Order: sequence, then structure tokens, then C-alpha cells
Amino acid sequence: MGAPQTLDGWYVYHDFRKVRYDVWKNTPQPNSVLRTYAEFAESQYALQRDRKGSFGQFVIAGHKADVLFLYMRPSLEELNEVKAAFAATPMADLTESTYSYISVVELGGYLAKPGVDIEQDEAIQARLKPTMPSHRHICFYPMNKRRMNPDNWYMLDEDERRKFLQAHGAIGRRYAGIVKQIICGSIGLDDWEWGVTLFADDPLQFKKLVHEMRFDESSARFAEFGPFYVGHQVDTDGLWRWLMSSRG
Amino acid sequence: MGAPQTLDGWYVYHDFRKVRYDVWKNTPQPNSVLRTYAEFAESQYALQRDRKGSFGQFVIAGHKADVLFLYMRPSLEELNEVKAAFAATPMADLTESTYSYISVVELGGYLAKPGVDIEQDEAIQARLKPTMPSHRHICFYPMNKRRMNPDNWYMLDEDERRKFLQAHGAIGRRYAGIVKQIICGSIGLDDWEWGVTLFADDPLQFKKLVHEMRFDESSARFAEFGPFYVGHQVDTDGLWRWLMSSRG
Amino acid sequence: MGAPQTLDGWYVYHDFRKVRYDVWKNTPQPNSVLRTYAEFAESQYALQRDRKGSFGQFVIAGHKADVLFLYMRPSLEELNEVKAAFAATPMADLTESTYSYISVVELGGYLAKPGVDIEQDEAIQARLKPTMPSHRHICFYPMNKRRMNPDNWYMLDEDERRKFLQAHGAIGRRYAGIVKQIICGSIGLDDWEWGVTLFADDPLQFKKLVHEMRFDESSARFAEFGPFYVGHQVDTDGLWRWLMSSRG
Amino acid sequence: MGAPQTLDGWYVYHDFRKVRYDVWKNTPQPNSVLRTYAEFAESQYALQRDRKGSFGQFVIAGHKADVLFLYMRPSLEELNEVKAAFAATPMADLTESTYSYISVVELGGYLAKPGVDIEQDEAIQARLKPTMPSHRHICFYPMNKRRMNPDNWYMLDEDERRKFLQAHGAIGRRYAGIVKQIICGSIGLDDWEWGVTLFADDPLQFKKLVHEMRFDESSARFAEFGPFYVGHQVDTDGLWRWLMSSRG
Amino acid sequence: MGAPQTLDGWYVYHDFRKVRYDVWKNTPQPNSVLRTYAEFAESQYALQRDRKGSFGQFVIAGHKADVLFLYMRPSLEELNEVKAAFAATPMADLTESTYSYISVVELGGYLAKPGVDIEQDEAIQARLKPTMPSHRHICFYPMNKRRMNPDNWYMLDEDERRKFLQAHGAIGRRYAGIVKQIICGSIGLDDWEWGVTLFADDPLQFKKLVHEMRFDESSARFAEFGPFYVGHQVDTDGLWRWLMSSRG
Repeated sequence: MGAPQTLDGWYVYHDFRKVRYDVWKNTPQPNSVLRTYAEFAESQYALQRDRKGSFGQFVIAGHKADVLFLYMRPSLEELNEVKAAFAATPMADLTESTYSYISVVELGGYLAKPGVDIEQDEAIQARLKPTMPSHRHICFYPMNKRRMNPDNWYMLDEDERRKFLQAHGAIGRRYAGIVKQIICGSIGLDDWEWGVTLFADDPLQFKKLVHEMRFDESSARFAEFGPFYVGHQVDTDGLWRWLMSSRG
Repeated sequence: MGAPQTLDGWYVYHDFRKVRYDVWKNTPQPNSVLRTYAEFAESQYALQRDRKGSFGQFVIAGHKADVLFLYMRPSLEELNEVKAAFAATPMADLTESTYSYISVVELGGYLAKPGVDIEQDEAIQARLKPTMPSHRHICFYPMNKRRMNPDNWYMLDEDERRKFLQAHGAIGRRYAGIVKQIICGSIGLDDWEWGVTLFADDPLQFKKLVHEMRFDESSARFAEFGPFYVGHQVDTDGLWRWLMSSRG
Repeated sequence: MGAPQTLDGWYVYHDFRKVRYDVWKNTPQPNSVLRTYAEFAESQYALQRDRKGSFGQFVIAGHKADVLFLYMRPSLEELNEVKAAFAATPMADLTESTYSYISVVELGGYLAKPGVDIEQDEAIQARLKPTMPSHRHICFYPMNKRRMNPDNWYMLDEDERRKFLQAHGAIGRRYAGIVKQIICGSIGLDDWEWGVTLFADDPLQFKKLVHEMRFDESSARFAEFGPFYVGHQVDTDGLWRWLMSSRG
Repeated sequence: MGAPQTLDGWYVYHDFRKVRYDVWKNTPQPNSVLRTYAEFAESQYALQRDRKGSFGQFVIAGHKADVLFLYMRPSLEELNEVKAAFAATPMADLTESTYSYISVVELGGYLAKPGVDIEQDEAIQARLKPTMPSHRHICFYPMNKRRMNPDNWYMLDEDERRKFLQAHGAIGRRYAGIVKQIICGSIGLDDWEWGVTLFADDPLQFKKLVHEMRFDESSARFAEFGPFYVGHQVDTDGLWRWLMSSRG
Repeated sequence: MGAPQTLDGWYVYHDFRKVRYDVWKNTPQPNSVLRTYAEFAESQYALQRDRKGSFGQFVIAGHKADVLFLYMRPSLEELNEVKAAFAATPMADLTESTYSYISVVELGGYLAKPGVDIEQDEAIQARLKPTMPSHRHICFYPMNKRRMNPDNWYMLDEDERRKFLQAHGAIGRRYAGIVKQIICGSIGLDDWEWGVTLFADDPLQFKKLVHEMRFDESSARFAEFGPFYVGHQVDTDGLWRWLMSSRG
């Protein structure tokens, strides 16, 4: 029952935050907040253009969070650096962190073809170090594979696991071009085993995809889900317009 | 074990809030709060009159929340817009969000008759994009179908699921005209699989309906329930009277 | 497997609160707080004397709450009214709500004798619309009947359930005159299925009764319990003396 | 399957608190806090000398609490009185309650010998109304007996339970003179069924005892544990020195 | 089914804290904070050089904590002393504790060779009283062995447990030189049975090691995990630079 091999890419930091409206509504010069924050955001986008990281901004629905800042970086230390750099912006003062997730972009190791140098395989490198998808909507949730007799994923033999994963993957492939998935591993890094981030222009496709997968035996018997977050992607201007519209 | 088809309508945002009495009691000009908030509420009712959305205001019992603002909209982004628009009102300053739910009005797909264009079927459209029921009381709770061996809903075959759902639906139909149900799907959108909103003039009927259903095998074996919220519906004047009576 | 019939009486609101000592100790004129609050409490006792409701005040042990205000009313809306009326008193400013429970006084329907008009049956009416018992101590806890294979209460047939309930009731009857029980149903109203309120002069009897019942199969296999709260009953003067003694 | 008899002694209140350092460090005259608090503590020790109650002060490790005040009294109402009396001290202002436990000292009823008046049995009375042990360290945890098929303690027959308890007790007796146990029952009084308080000069003995018991079938199959708290006992001067050393 | 023997070393205190940015950003003289705190940190390192304890400082990823202070000491009381000493520093004022763990360094007792005085066995002493590893990254998580039929670790016979532990240990040994493990026991001391602290220069090795172990039967069937924390090690200067970079 050997553990499957994985390919691991960039480290990922989902930072979910709520607006502190008491602070925000009493900020005397919101435009100076914007100017300073926009510099931070622009520096993140510049890193992305240089393929040294990835950055996204999102407005989140419901009470669990108002905004999501999503960062990817080659190392965990850089995620800690960006945490401090964000804290230094006035955007940090008018929001508070309510949830986060630390993980690593993960690909199933069976992708590696014999004789191919993964570092030179551009398609795989693009998946391990992804530019932030530009789809209009995002969905994030962490999950585990169940280890509860008789439904214990980690006690299945390798053939059973592979069969389950193939059926599971087939559903995902039917949504190719509609829902983009970034699967991140977080065993040993955060409280669940994976963090799943989905991107789509139509958020109804999140519901359809996750609903369809739930009837698949690998989810029906083995998946345990954490909280779900959905929202829409914005650029710095869009984030600002949304914040200004909440200011009254 | 294919996933059942659903028809999906408006996006729904339940926003449960508690009054911040320290703020509210020290608000020097409550009438100006009312005037500004009443404009927001009126704009929501205007949307509802135009069939572009739906809006309801409720006073909630117990400590989990004092008020509920319930919005429906054609898109998730519009729910994020209304979140900001509400935040901009002084009502947002004197309350705080304690719970919320993001979902989509959902009908079982077997409703679609062959050869009928659903977009033209007015009865179905009215159910997918419902005007807020005018009943005096509301009950909300989120729920899952259990996936715990041997009671795993998602491992049942389609015939078993249909048989269970028919028995379950028969109970609901016996309450036709007494309890109005709006079933919303939230797989991939929020932390539970469904959000159930019930409306009735007599709140005892919530207890009778949910109690009766609990003895039905589909609930007895497969239902997992989140928190329950109950309250009574108010218009803007009624909400205001309730708030003024709490001011001392 | 039909659902058992119940008789339903007054709506019940348990409001557990903690003292905000920072506020309380800095209240410059505690006697004016008392005067205003005493009017509220007196209006509640007046309603009780008129048989239009029920009211009790309790000092609660431990950190989960300091005081409990317990209200019964003919309608849910009246519970929301009293919530606002209490919020308007200065007692609300110096306490904060930490837990609550919304339920309805419930009697097993098998009590109704054929040919008897329940509205005219004074003994049953007194149980459905109870005056607050005057015992010195109170115990409250919410509970569910388990639905976890193989211990699924709602999958038992009616005869089994009746047999279990009879054995359970026999224990309760042995405590007749010692422990007074008010059983409230809360399916569809709050997060558990029942709220149990016990009254006794000697609080050790709560421990003895609940302990004895736990060895009864209906509790041993099927009961799931929420938090337990215990305390002693006070009138307005007694509550005031306790509060003043905490003021230093 | 009758419930076992118990002997019940004093009521017990564990009050776990964290220091509010913002308040404490800004207290201008810490010595006046000490003087007032020391009077309260002395009154508790005086009660203990008179055998009318019991009192202990402890510094707790980790973030869940900084200090524990442990009270025993003949009645629940007296625990509520001492709660108010403590609240009136300045020590209450510079700490906040983070956990508590309400229970009753409990002895297995099989201790009562036929023909012996328990009230006159000094050894049993000393165990039911214990003076606070003077050991250097304390360990507290609440626990339940599991009721989850097939490991349901309350469905065992009396002989099985007795056999399990004897094996369990034998482990405890091996630690006689090393670890002092005060077992308190809390069914019907607080959220778990028992509160266990251990005293030892060497805190490693807590780990050894609980570890050894975990391999005993009555714990391995039937015990469910709540949070664990450990710390060291201090007198008023010792508590004061610890507090002063945290003041900077 | 006797409990296995353990060797127990130093007491361990993991103190996870979040920065209070409102306080930190408004600290007028950050350098005086640094000077005072650096004295405290230096005193900890001095103890470590004298082999009287161990000390580490870490920046933690994600929202659960920003920094970790990790202390080891010969006695529990000394951990309480250092808690007060840290509270006295200005670093305590600008952070707040969000999680902690209290445990004891633990070695499997089978390590003790007959006829060898453990106190004189330097290799074992170095493992029981470890100097803080200097690896660049840290991972911490608490865990239990499951006691849920049919997967009840504590009901296995000694041979089965030994076989499981050997397979488990073999995985750990394959990471020798890459991941350093400090296993601490906390039965009777904190809320889980063990606290596991891993050190590695490459944090991806945490994911690889824990992932591989999860497919090992002793983890797959018996391990229950608490929250996971990861971060990178800093000295006082490094901590200060990180804090200053978050100040804006």
C-alpha cells in the first residue's frame, strides 16, 4: 500500500478576510488607502507577469468572508513575506483575517512520463506554477479522504484507488473548458488533506460539478468536506469600486 | 448512479444579523437611520415588483439572530452587490452578521416535461424565481444527505432514491396551502447541501411538518440538520417598530 | 411508522445571559437600573397572574451563564416582543446573551381522551400553559433522539417506541413531587429536538433523575444531550441582591 | 440494569480564568488589588479550616487558562454566592472566565456498609467533604462513558460494569500516596458526566496514571475525554508573585 | 494489555500567537520593544547553551498564528514561570495567544538497555533534553490514537501494536537526516495524546513524510489529527525584521 507519488509546485496561500466596516467607514481619506494598496497589488501582478508567483483578488459571498486574496509562490517563506507585506498596507487595517489555507499545487505523479525531465516539460510546469485563471468566479473548499471503517481510503489497495480516481477524473474532464481546477495538497501543512480551488465564468457550474461528483463512489464514500467559499474575481479597480459601494 | 438533474433559479442570500444594542441605543437620530434604510428596503421591494429579485425582512427568535434579510437575485454577483449596498446603510452599522447562507432555488429536474421550453413555462418560472411569500412566519435550516455507511444516500440506486423522495414529497404535499417550501441547493456554494426555507402563518406548522418528516425513512436515516432559525415577517414599518421597542 | 401526535401549548424562550461586569461595576446609579428593570419584571409577573404567560428569574452556576430569564407566551410573536421589551431595560445593557432556546410546551398526544374537548380539560390546559414552578432550583438541557444505525429512534416501530417511553416515564413518575418536568418540543424551531426544564428544591435530585434515566435503554441507546445549565430561582429582590453582591 | 447508587458530598466549582494583561499591566496600584483579594482568599481558607468548604488556587499551563480557583461547598447556592463574591474582588476585573465545571463529589455507593450511618463514618465524610489536597500539582478533565454501539457503557449489565470498574480502580490504587483523585459526578449539572481532579507532587504521575488507564478496557472502549488542564498549586502569596512577575 | 513504558524528558510549551496589528502599528518606539524583548530571548538562548532548557522562534504561515515561541524545561513549573516572564515583555502586549500545547518529550521505553543507567546514556539524554534543532522549517500537530470500534488502538495486543509501530518507525527512519522528529506525550497534560514537532530545511518534506505515513496502517486506521501549523525558524533579528516589514 505504498503512497502515490505526487508532483508539487508552488506554495499557495488563500487569505479570506472580512471588512471592518467601523474602521472603513471612518477612514477619512479612502483614496490614499487605495493608492497605497494599489502599489502592493501591482507588485503582485508584476511578479505574476514575471512567472515568479501568482495573485488574485475576489469578492466573497455571505458572512464568512468579504474578500479573498490568493497568492502562489515558489517557497513557503515567500508566503510569510507576502503576509507581512500585506499586513503593512492600509487594506490590512480595514479588514481582518477569518480563514486561510496553506497548501502546495499538486499533480498526480502518474503524469510524469519516463525519460522526460519534468523541469523541461512546459505543460506540466504551467500546471505546477499556474498563472491565476481569469474566469469570473471562484469556489474554494478543503477536503479529506475518509479513514472510517469500512470506508477507509488509505486502506484501499492501489488498484482500487486508481479505479476510483479515474472515474472521478472523468467527471472533471467533462467540465474541461467550463471549470478549471487547481488541486493543492496540504497533508502536513494545514488542517485538511487537500484544498480545491475551482474557477468558472458561470458559478452554477460549481454546483453542477460538485453535485455530480458527490454521486461518484470516491466522493460518496470517501470525501469529507470543510467550508465552501464562493465569489467573483475583481481587479484592483473592481475591488475598490465594491469597497466604495459598501461605504455609504 | 448518475446525479439527478435539477432546475436552478435565482441565487439566494440569507443574512442573519444581531442588533448591536450599544450602538443602537446611542444612535442620536434614529429617524434618520430609518429614512436612509427605508430607501434601501424600498429599492429591494421595487426590484421584486419588477420580477428582478425578491426581498423579505424578518424578526428572529432567540439569541442566534435578531433579524433576517432575505434576498434573491438572478446572479451571484448581484448578491455581492446587495451585500455592499446593505453595508452602506446605517442599518448595517447597528447590526452585525452572525450567520448567512448562499444557495440557488432548486427544483427536481423530473418536473421538466418533454417538448416544453422551461423558459416559457410560467408555473415553473414562478417557482424558480419566487416572489417572497407573504406568510406571517419563516423557518430556515440547512441540511445534508448522510454519507455514513450503512446510511449513504449517494450510494443508493436511483430507484431507491426516487421512492424515498416520493414518500418525502407526499408529506410536504399534505401541508400544501399551510406551509410553503422554497428548497435551495448549495452543493459547491455553502457548507451544507441544501437550505430549506419554510413559510407559514402558524409557526406550529413548522414543528408539525419537520416532526412528521423525521419519521419518514429518507429523513430518519439520511438527513443531517444544521441550525434552525424561526421568526416572523415584517415590512419596513414593522421592523422599525420592533427596533424602536428595543431601544428603551 | 407514523409520527406520534403531540399536544402543543405555550411558546417558551430560555434567555441565558452573562453579566458584563465592566459595565455593571461602572454603572453610577444601580438603584435606577433596579427601578426600571423591576417594572419590566413586575409586568411579566402580572401577565403570569392573568394566566397570559409565565415568567421566571434564575441565578446560573458556572461560566456559561450568570442569569436565566424564562418566558412562556401563547405565540412566537409575543416572544419576539418580550425580547425587544427586555432589550429596552437597563438590565439588558449590563448583561449579554450567551445561549437561548426556543420551544413549545409539548405533551404526548396519547393523553387526549376520546370525546374530551382538550380546550376544556383544565388539568391538560394547566400543563400546556404552566405557571412557573416555584421550586428553588432549575436544570435545563436540550436533547435529540439518536438517528445513527443501529440506534435509530425514528426507525423503531411504534410499539417499540411506546415501550421505551413507558419505561422512561416510569422513572420520571418515581420522582413525582420531587422533580417537576416541563418537556418542550423544538423540532423545526431550534437546534435540538427537545428542551427539558427540571425544577426541584434539592438540585441533587437533578443528578439522581438524569443519572437513573441514563441507564434506561431509551436514553442509553438513543439520547444525545446538549449543554446542561443549573441554578437557583430568585425573585426580583433576590436577583438584585445577587447582582449587588457581585459589584464590590 | 439499575443505576448504581452513589454517595454525594460537596458541590464543586472549578473556575478557570485568563489574565487580562491589558488591564493588569495598567492597574495603577497592584498592592491594593492584592490587599482586597487576599481578604477574599483568606475568608475561603477560614471556611476550609472550619470544615465548611474547601478552597485552592493554581497557576495553569498553556493558553486555555492562566489561573484556577477551586471551591467546594455544601450547597449549589453557596457556589453561586461565592461566584458573586469573587466577581466583587478586583482579581475578577483583571481576569476573565474561560472555562468552568460544576459537579458534586461522588463516591461509589458500594462503600456504604450495612448498618453504618454514613453521616457518622468519618473516613467517608472526609472523602465526601474533602479539604483541598496540598500536593504541588493539579490535573483536571471532564469525561463521559461512551454510549456508541457496540461500546455502550450504559447497556452493559451490572456485573460487567463492576468487573470493569474493579480493574480500573486497581490501577488507581497502585498510585495511592502518589496521585490523589477527587471524582465528581456532573450528570444533570454540567456538560460531561464526571469531572476528575488529580493531585500529585510530580506532574509526570498524571501522564503515567492516565496513560496506564487508557490501556484498561473500561477506558479504551468506553471513556470520552474533554479538555485537560494542568498546573501548580499556590497560596495567595505565590499567586501574587506569579502575577507580579507577569507584569513587567 | 499492559501500557508500554516510556522515557520522559523535558516539559514542552508551544505558544502560538497572532500579532495585534492595531497595537503594533501604533507602538511609538518599536526599537525599545525590540531591546526589551531581545533581553528575554537572549536569556532563553543562554539557558539553552547551559543545557537547562531549549528555545526557538518561528514565523507561522496562515491565519491561525503569526509566530510560535517554543520552550522546553526540566519542570512544568518552569514553563509557568516562563509564561509569566514572556507576558512581562512588550512582545506579549503586541501579540495574543491563539493556541498552545503542553507536553513532555517522550521516547519509547524499549530504548532502555538492561544494565544501562539512562541518566548516564548521553545519546538518550540528548534526545530527552534536546537542543532546538536548527533546521529552517517547523511543522507541529497534535494527534490521538483512535479508540473507535473496530479501530481501537488501545484494544490491540502488545504484539500488534509493536508491529504497527515498527512499520511506522521505518518510514520515519527513511527521512533520517531530512526530517527531525520530536515526539512529545501529552496524555493527562493537554487535549490530545501526543504533540509531534517536525523540523526540516525543505518544508515539502513535511508533506511527503506525513503523506507517506498516512498510507501506513497504523496511521490509516488509528491516527486522529488536530490542527497543523507550519512556519520557518528565525533568530531574534529575523523575527524583528519580519515584524518590522509588517508595520508599513
